[in-house]
Amino acid sequence: MTMTSPPLAGCSLSLNALAAAPLAALTARVQEFGVRVERTASGVTLIDAGIEAPGSTAAGLLIGEICLGALGAVHQRAGGVSPWPSWIEVSSAQPVLACLGSQYAGWSLSASKEETGGRKFFALGSGPARALAVKEPLFAELGYRDHSDRGVLVLEVDRPPPQVVIDKVLRDCGLAPDGLTLILTPTRSLAGTAQVVARVLEVALHKAHTLGFDLGDIAEGAACAPLPSPVADGVQAMGRTNDAILYGGQVHLRVRGELAAARALALQLPSSCSRDYGTRFADIFQRADHDFYRIDPALFAPAEVWVSHLDSGQTFHAGAMNLDLLLADWRQPAG
Amino acid sequence: MTMTSPPLAGCSLSLNALAAAPLAALTARVQEFGVRVERTASGVTLIDAGIEAPGSTAAGLLIGEICLGALGAVHQRAGGVSPWPSWIEVSSAQPVLACLGSQYAGWSLSASKEETGGRKFFALGSGPARALAVKEPLFAELGYRDHSDRGVLVLEVDRPPPQVVIDKVLRDCGLAPDGLTLILTPTRSLAGTAQVVARVLEVALHKAHTLGFDLGDIAEGAACAPLPSPVADGVQAMGRTNDAILYGGQVHLRVRGELAAARALALQLPSSCSRDYGTRFADIFQRADHDFYRIDPALFAPAEVWVSHLDSGQTFHAGAMNLDLLLADWRQPAG
Amino acid sequence: MTMTSPPLAGCSLSLNALAAAPLAALTARVQEFGVRVERTASGVTLIDAGIEAPGSTAAGLLIGEICLGALGAVHQRAGGVSPWPSWIEVSSAQPVLACLGSQYAGWSLSASKEETGGRKFFALGSGPARALAVKEPLFAELGYRDHSDRGVLVLEVDRPPPQVVIDKVLRDCGLAPDGLTLILTPTRSLAGTAQVVARVLEVALHKAHTLGFDLGDIAEGAACAPLPSPVADGVQAMGRTNDAILYGGQVHLRVRGELAAARALALQLPSSCSRDYGTRFADIFQRADHDFYRIDPALFAPAEVWVSHLDSGQTFHAGAMNLDLLLADWRQPAG
Repeated sequence: MTMTSPPLAGCSLSLNALAAAPLAALTARVQEFGVRVERTASGVTLIDAGIEAPGSTAAGLLIGEICLGALGAVHQRAGGVSPWPSWIEVSSAQPVLACLGSQYAGWSLSASKEETGGRKFFALGSGPARALAVKEPLFAELGYRDHSDRGVLVLEVDRPPPQVVIDKVLRDCGLAPDGLTLILTPTRSLAGTAQVVARVLEVALHKAHTLGFDLGDIAEGAACAPLPSPVADGVQAMGRTNDAILYGGQVHLRVRGELAAARALALQLPSSCSRDYGTRFADIFQRADHDFYRIDPALFAPAEVWVSHLDSGQTFHAGAMNLDLLLADWRQPAG
Repeated sequence: MTMTSPPLAGCSLSLNALAAAPLAALTARVQEFGVRVERTASGVTLIDAGIEAPGSTAAGLLIGEICLGALGAVHQRAGGVSPWPSWIEVSSAQPVLACLGSQYAGWSLSASKEETGGRKFFALGSGPARALAVKEPLFAELGYRDHSDRGVLVLEVDRPPPQVVIDKVLRDCGLAPDGLTLILTPTRSLAGTAQVVARVLEVALHKAHTLGFDLGDIAEGAACAPLPSPVADGVQAMGRTNDAILYGGQVHLRVRGELAAARALALQLPSSCSRDYGTRFADIFQRADHDFYRIDPALFAPAEVWVSHLDSGQTFHAGAMNLDLLLADWRQPAG
Repeated sequence: MTMTSPPLAGCSLSLNALAAAPLAALTARVQEFGVRVERTASGVTLIDAGIEAPGSTAAGLLIGEICLGALGAVHQRAGGVSPWPSWIEVSSAQPVLACLGSQYAGWSLSASKEETGGRKFFALGSGPARALAVKEPLFAELGYRDHSDRGVLVLEVDRPPPQVVIDKVLRDCGLAPDGLTLILTPTRSLAGTAQVVARVLEVALHKAHTLGFDLGDIAEGAACAPLPSPVADGVQAMGRTNDAILYGGQVHLRVRGELAAARALALQLPSSCSRDYGTRFADIFQRADHDFYRIDPALFAPAEVWVSHLDSGQTFHAGAMNLDLLLADWRQPAG
């Protein structure tokens, strides 16, 4: 691999400005979508999409588009003749910026008991505001930073963040309180389930990055995955959304660059390349004593991968959906 | 089952205000969609979507969204690798309000020969204006009533309603003439076929209600069904749109409440639970001497049902599409 | 066949006025979609969607809608359980006007070496501006002509048209320079591939016309086709987009008129009716010594055809997708 300029060098799109459109669509339909919008005393907007509020899959789809900085579309589809009734489709003409620059849950936000005056808090922030804070080394690699007087961040949490975390986000993003919107989506909620499964394309982008594939060569991407039912148990909920991608996710990337690199990407990308592939994520997680860092990172990938190489026109195919594994866990005969 | 408050108690969404958006989309494209908009002498708006005007499937999809009070999406999909080329998909984050409070054809409107000065008139009104008139006991159960100075009602008829019926609608809805829009969709028309098949989710909601399932526990729903070709013969046209749902409809409901209730719902919901299941609806109707009330009400249901129980995460599956039955009737080899 | 008035007689829809909406959507997202908008010295707008600019599939979908005069929808879908990961769907409530009056690449635009002062230029213009120029006998048959002070034309070219061609377009369309937009989509580009595959419905309309089917009897249409990867080689690129339609295209037409005519249309429409059917288009083209006029015109058709006859309700089915032929060419195992 030769030295190249960062993949997003010169990009002047503003993720946070773009996200204003799906964010407005969400707040315009709060009652229909079952979300609740509140202002903190200091003026920060909190959107509860599944803690006290019921939320909905429809809210989750919009939150998925907000997470992508509106640089991608997220839709629900009926299953029809497929063996599972609800699917999510995602596509983006700017997958590196939308998925890695925005949707990836890469901003670690924590507060100690002392800081919260109660329970410890931990969350991974995702969405456009990450690119205002640029706290992650990834942004230097991408060569991207957003500048905006409003920002939106998504937190996969069961309770609102403590003030100390909100203050940190404001400070790191350089935002006034009334410029910040925090969207809260518990893993166990309808919206949380949908917005996590909507990461199927992002998961592919992240693994491609891990594999050393030149991000500047990724032209566009599209993906789908089955949408599981939420489940109240936290580990099972996390397990299901992971399984949706690991065993049901299908990704199509269109790439430039070397033919051999495209072929290698397809070969190495599917979840089946991992030594941990083959059982439900909740079981893998329990086997690893609930320690993420003992799970093979290569597992975090879509089940089925198509990589089209634009100049040669060759499309490399690897992996396969394993819907039987999902259905064994997700579906119960009624009678 | 314990006593609960009505499922829509406290809901302040206005179906008729919300329906203004898809209604404006329809009237903005009258020539493209083949519909005709007229004003009666008194100022009521009549939209002919298939009587004198040709109408279109696209008009029918929008009429489906109008019927849902814009609280649901209706789309056409190509069949691709499925054995029928055109499908309709419906989803709603507010299925009880959208389907039962609005789309259900529950408002009986009739006029005698004496009243019309000609032929008797009978139609079942569906859509948002039902919730202004609240003539059906269902609205007390739902705990919902709309208040709006405009209203829209859909009538599955072959001719415009007589003035006496229009006057009754205005009176019951408390509308001035220029606040009322009536959309006319013959069963045999393109728009009529599409807007009836778009009731696949509503049919499931209605049967769930009949089965005594607590409507307040229905969180959201999505569904699909194959879209048949219209046919000029009235009984065959009605038969086909019913068959599309009874033998081709697939519904996914996400519900709260007791696990056993979710399981029982899935088990009892499919059309195959009916003793009349198994032959074309037109034949069943003829066998019943064209008397709806001699047909088993349990027949009116989708073919395939998935019920996800949100807390446990279990998804109960019952019934199955019977596309062979549909194709035997709908498809002719060309050569 | 009896003499009838032209199918679009009395139609007052303006293709070029309608196309302004998707054109605005495209120019509002130039950076996201990778297109470049330039003004020539004289004020004509040129949109580069794949020459110097990278373009994208998303741009190609919008260009497809522009080509249809906004009288049709073009969407990308994930493949899910089908054997190819990316598909395009097209539907129109005005297929004759949208496809033949607008999208069909029927306007021959050429310039000699003497005129260009360099290389010869040749392109087939498609899209709304054709209906301003009405240089093709087809428009008299359709009974349609547009009048607008702005126009948009799509050219499947590898370089901008020479001034002499731009001047001819302006003159024939009766447009001032700042009223004309030219969209340039090389066959080998992402946008070019998508906008050509989005012609799957138009290809069916064109063959129906060639077969002598009364265009006034075509009520509406919907179609899908698999979206191949672009390829740099021009003949292969053209071959693939043709193959997508000839071997993967599925069309559903709803028609009026004589039952026998509907049946005959279905029987004669599929690509498999052609003596040249059965091998890749690139091979057929090479066998014909790169001379289009030696290829059987009956080949240019979708693979699978459904024709619904509205009065009888019969749907005639002929042809079949041949995805194996496509996959043998388009897909490479990665390992």
